[in-house]
Amino acid sequence: MNGKGEQAMIYLGVDLGGTNIKAAAVMEDGRILSETFLPTMLPRSAEAVTEDIVNAMGQSLEKIGAVWADVAGAGVGCPGTVDDESGMILYSNNLGWAHFAMRAFLKERTGISVRLANDANAAALGESIAGCAQGAHSAVVLTLGTGVGSGVVLNGKMLSGYTGAASELGHMVILADGEMCTCGRRGCLESYASASALIRMTREAMTAYPKSILHELAKREGGISGKTVFLAKELGDAAGTWTVERYIHFLSIGVANVVNIFFPEIVALSGGVANQGDRLLEPLRQEVWPQVFGRVRPERRVRIECCTLGYKAGVIGAALMSRG
Amino acid sequence: MNGKGEQAMIYLGVDLGGTNIKAAAVMEDGRILSETFLPTMLPRSAEAVTEDIVNAMGQSLEKIGAVWADVAGAGVGCPGTVDDESGMILYSNNLGWAHFAMRAFLKERTGISVRLANDANAAALGESIAGCAQGAHSAVVLTLGTGVGSGVVLNGKMLSGYTGAASELGHMVILADGEMCTCGRRGCLESYASASALIRMTREAMTAYPKSILHELAKREGGISGKTVFLAKELGDAAGTWTVERYIHFLSIGVANVVNIFFPEIVALSGGVANQGDRLLEPLRQEVWPQVFGRVRPERRVRIECCTLGYKAGVIGAALMSRG
Repeated sequence: MNGKGEQAMIYLGVDLGGTNIKAAAVMEDGRILSETFLPTMLPRSAEAVTEDIVNAMGQSLEKIGAVWADVAGAGVGCPGTVDDESGMILYSNNLGWAHFAMRAFLKERTGISVRLANDANAAALGESIAGCAQGAHSAVVLTLGTGVGSGVVLNGKMLSGYTGAASELGHMVILADGEMCTCGRRGCLESYASASALIRMTREAMTAYPKSILHELAKREGGISGKTVFLAKELGDAAGTWTVERYIHFLSIGVANVVNIFFPEIVALSGGVANQGDRLLEPLRQEVWPQVFGRVRPERRVRIECCTLGYKAGVIGAALMSRG
Repeated sequence: MNGKGEQAMIYLGVDLGGTNIKAAAVMEDGRILSETFLPTMLPRSAEAVTEDIVNAMGQSLEKIGAVWADVAGAGVGCPGTVDDESGMILYSNNLGWAHFAMRAFLKERTGISVRLANDANAAALGESIAGCAQGAHSAVVLTLGTGVGSGVVLNGKMLSGYTGAASELGHMVILADGEMCTCGRRGCLESYASASALIRMTREAMTAYPKSILHELAKREGGISGKTVFLAKELGDAAGTWTVERYIHFLSIGVANVVNIFFPEIVALSGGVANQGDRLLEPLRQEVWPQVFGRVRPERRVRIECCTLGYKAGVIGAALMSRG
C-alpha cells in the first residue's frame, strides 16, 4: 500500500486504558489487520502518553506496510468525559488529565484527524459492528467491572448526547438513598451491579454467615473476587447462593430499566462478572422478562447476551466510528 | 387548495386520548391551521373510534378548504404500545384494544398513509418542533399526571426502540423493592413522581400530621390534588413543606437519571404537577445539578423547563413525524 488507495480501506483504532495503549489497523468490516500494545505508564502527562499513541498507531501501520496517507479514518477511545465535537478530553479521573486537546495534538504529529469517544461507547460500537450485536438495530453494552461502564448504539451511531459526555447508565440510581457511589450520588447501578459491589455483598454475607464456605474459598483464592460467590453457590453454600441471587436481583433491575428506556435489540454484558456466562445470564433473563413494560411483538424480545470481542471491541469501535 | 400543491404543505395530526380525539391541520413549521375535537366515547370498538378519527381529520381539512390529496403527511399519536413499522396498535390499556391494524383501516378510508406513534413520544416531538425544545439537539419530556409519561427526541427523531414500543422512562425503577407500580414492578419513577404519587404522599403526611393545614385545604378544595401540598407550603405548613421536598427529592433522582442516561439539551416537564412552574422547577434544578455525572462544558448544562404547547404538542408531533 502506498497511499494510492488501491487496496481495501484501512482504519486505525486506539483504546487508551490505564494500563495499556492498544492500537490496531482495522478493515471496514471490523477485521483486525495488526495490533500494537504499549504500556500507558501512568502517571504521565497527556502529551507524553499521546506521543505513545502516535507510536502505537505508526507501528500498527508499519506491520502491514501501510503509511499515514493510507488511513481512511481513525479514532481514540478514552476513559472519562470526551468531547468529540471540540476534539478534547474534558476530564478523565483514570488518566489524571483535564482539558487536553487530543485531536489537535494527533493531527499535528500524524497529519490525520481522529475522532474521539468514551471508551465504553467505542466498545459498544465495536460489538455492534463485529461482535455480539453485529447487525442489530440497537445495542446497550454494560461492563461489570470495578465500576459499571456503558455504551449505547442506536441505528449504528453511538449515543453521546448534547453535552458530548457519554451515556452513563452506571450512574442511574436504582435504589434512592442507597449505597454511596464514587460519583457522589447514592444508590447508583454501579453501587449494586459492579464487580466491586459483588465483592462488598460477599463480605456482608461472610460477616452474616461465619460458617459459610465463602471463608475457605477466599482463603484458598488469596482474597474475595467476583467469582467467589458463584463458586460457593455451585458447592451448595447458602450464603453464596443468597449473594448471587441478591446481586442478580439488582442487576436485573438495571437491565430491565435499560430495556424499558431504550428497547434495544440486545443488552450485552462484559467485564469480569460477565465471565460467569450462563450461570449469570440464565437467571438474569428469567428475572428481567417480567419487568419489561408493555406488550411487544414476541419475536422482538430484547436479547440479553455476553459480549464476544473482549478488548478488541474498543479498538474496532474507535477505528470505525469515523466510518460513514 | 385543490391538490395542485400551489400552497404550503399541509400535515394532519391526531392525538387519540381516552376522552377526546383531537385532530389538526398543521404547517411544516408546526403552526396549526385548524383543529377538530370529537369525543372518544369509550368503550367503543377500535373500528368505530377510528371512523371518528377519519371524521376529525376530514373536518380539519374542510375548515381550511383542503382535500385529502393536499395532505403531505399524517400521523396518529395513541396511548399504549404502538408499532409504526407494521402500522399496528399492539396494546392499549386506556383504549381497551389490542392488535388493531390502524394504518390499513385509515388508508382504506382516506387514501392516505399515516404514521403511528405513542402519544407521549408524539408530544415530545411536538415540543421539539414548535415548543419549549424548539431547535434543541435533543429533548426528553416527562409528563407528571396520573402516571409518568415520557418521550425522547434525539436529533429530531423519536426514540422508539427495536420493539416499536415507546421509551418508558416512567417505568425505570428508582427505588428497588419500593412502592408497587401499576406495571407490576416495584419502585418505578411513576410510583414516586406522578401526580398520583404526590397525592399518596399527601395522604401519608396528613396521617402523620393530624394538625396540618392540609386537612383544612383538602376539605375546602373538596379533596386532595397535586396542588394541595404546594398551597400548604406557601402557608408555611411543615407537613406540606416536607411533602413537597420529599416529592421533589424523588423527581430529582428521576430527572438526574434521565440526564446521566441521555445528556439531552433539555428535560421538559408537563402534566398537572408541572403547572406549579418555578415553585417546582427552581428547587428541582438545585437538587438535580449535583447528581449530574462527569465534568461537561458548563455552557452545555442541560436545561430543565416546563413544556409550552399543552395538548397541541401531541397533534403537532403526530402530524410532523412523517416530515423528512
